[in-house]
Amino acid sequence: MTSPSQLANDTHQLLKHWRESVPDDRLAHLVRDVARAQMRALQQRLAPFGVSFGHWTFLRILWIRDGLTQKELSDLAGVMEPTTFSAVKAMETMGLIERRQREGNRKNMHVFLTPAGRALEKKLVPLAEEVNHISMRGLSDKAAATLRKSLLSMIENLAAEESGGLGDEGE
Amino acid sequence: MTSPSQLANDTHQLLKHWRESVPDDRLAHLVRDVARAQMRALQQRLAPFGVSFGHWTFLRILWIRDGLTQKELSDLAGVMEPTTFSAVKAMETMGLIERRQREGNRKNMHVFLTPAGRALEKKLVPLAEEVNHISMRGLSDKAAATLRKSLLSMIENLAAEESGGLGDEGE
Repeated sequence: MTSPSQLANDTHQLLKHWRESVPDDRLAHLVRDVARAQMRALQQRLAPFGVSFGHWTFLRILWIRDGLTQKELSDLAGVMEPTTFSAVKAMETMGLIERRQREGNRKNMHVFLTPAGRALEKKLVPLAEEVNHISMRGLSDKAAATLRKSLLSMIENLAAEESGGLGDEGE
Repeated sequence: MTSPSQLANDTHQLLKHWRESVPDDRLAHLVRDVARAQMRALQQRLAPFGVSFGHWTFLRILWIRDGLTQKELSDLAGVMEPTTFSAVKAMETMGLIERRQREGNRKNMHVFLTPAGRALEKKLVPLAEEVNHISMRGLSDKAAATLRKSLLSMIENLAAEESGGLGDEGE
């Protein structure tokens, strides 16, 4: 397990990279580092509940849409099926989810939250909101709106590029 | 393995989330989705070289600082040591790195790039630059500078919060 002090050290390491070592490094890399810093901050807050960041990503999906197959869960989480499989097994042991077939369809196993898994939403979502709130400190509403717009355009650009196909891009 | 069309589908799914399903979702989540979209775009470009995104993250570190221990590599990549261990083993089999002890220090194994591993830098870094370039399309220099500043302040806020201490860390 990673101790809180290691985590702290790492976010400061990230910061040092941008302040001192490579201040003009690629923006794509900066986005990734923000995501990592947020992940660490959330990880620290989830740990007392025995929930890993991996479990959190699956729970977050199930709170919105319960009863997914493991394949659907993998696609939505953006991970490989074996990763989902082992997380689902662990969360089942923890009593957060259960796997069962739907009536009339014996082909797929579906993942359902238990009452305990569902109840965690009220406890854990505020932790993510706290991390979000902390990271946005000092940013005006206008700056936050601009940031949101720029980030969204990045996803749009990457989605458009994928549709257009790799290879001859015509640029 | 994830096919390119699955990947494409996923970035469009990300986009749909922000355009239709939950447009006012947390900014922390948006940052993470941009990082994911970028990762997918890079993954697609690395695949023809037989390099996974995981390998890329380690290579990128070694190109800057060769001869790290596996512990240092884990810390810099922000992953657990077993993850580093299996990636290092795979990259050794691929002939990209080799592990050896430093003279006069038989305690630690250090990870060194082979000439083949080093040569990949010239081939792979342009792929990351391409993804960066694509994601920034349509953003003015001013918007890019503002984006960079906002993202950096997010890391600063999270680092400050960690220093300030959750509970009493004092270590």
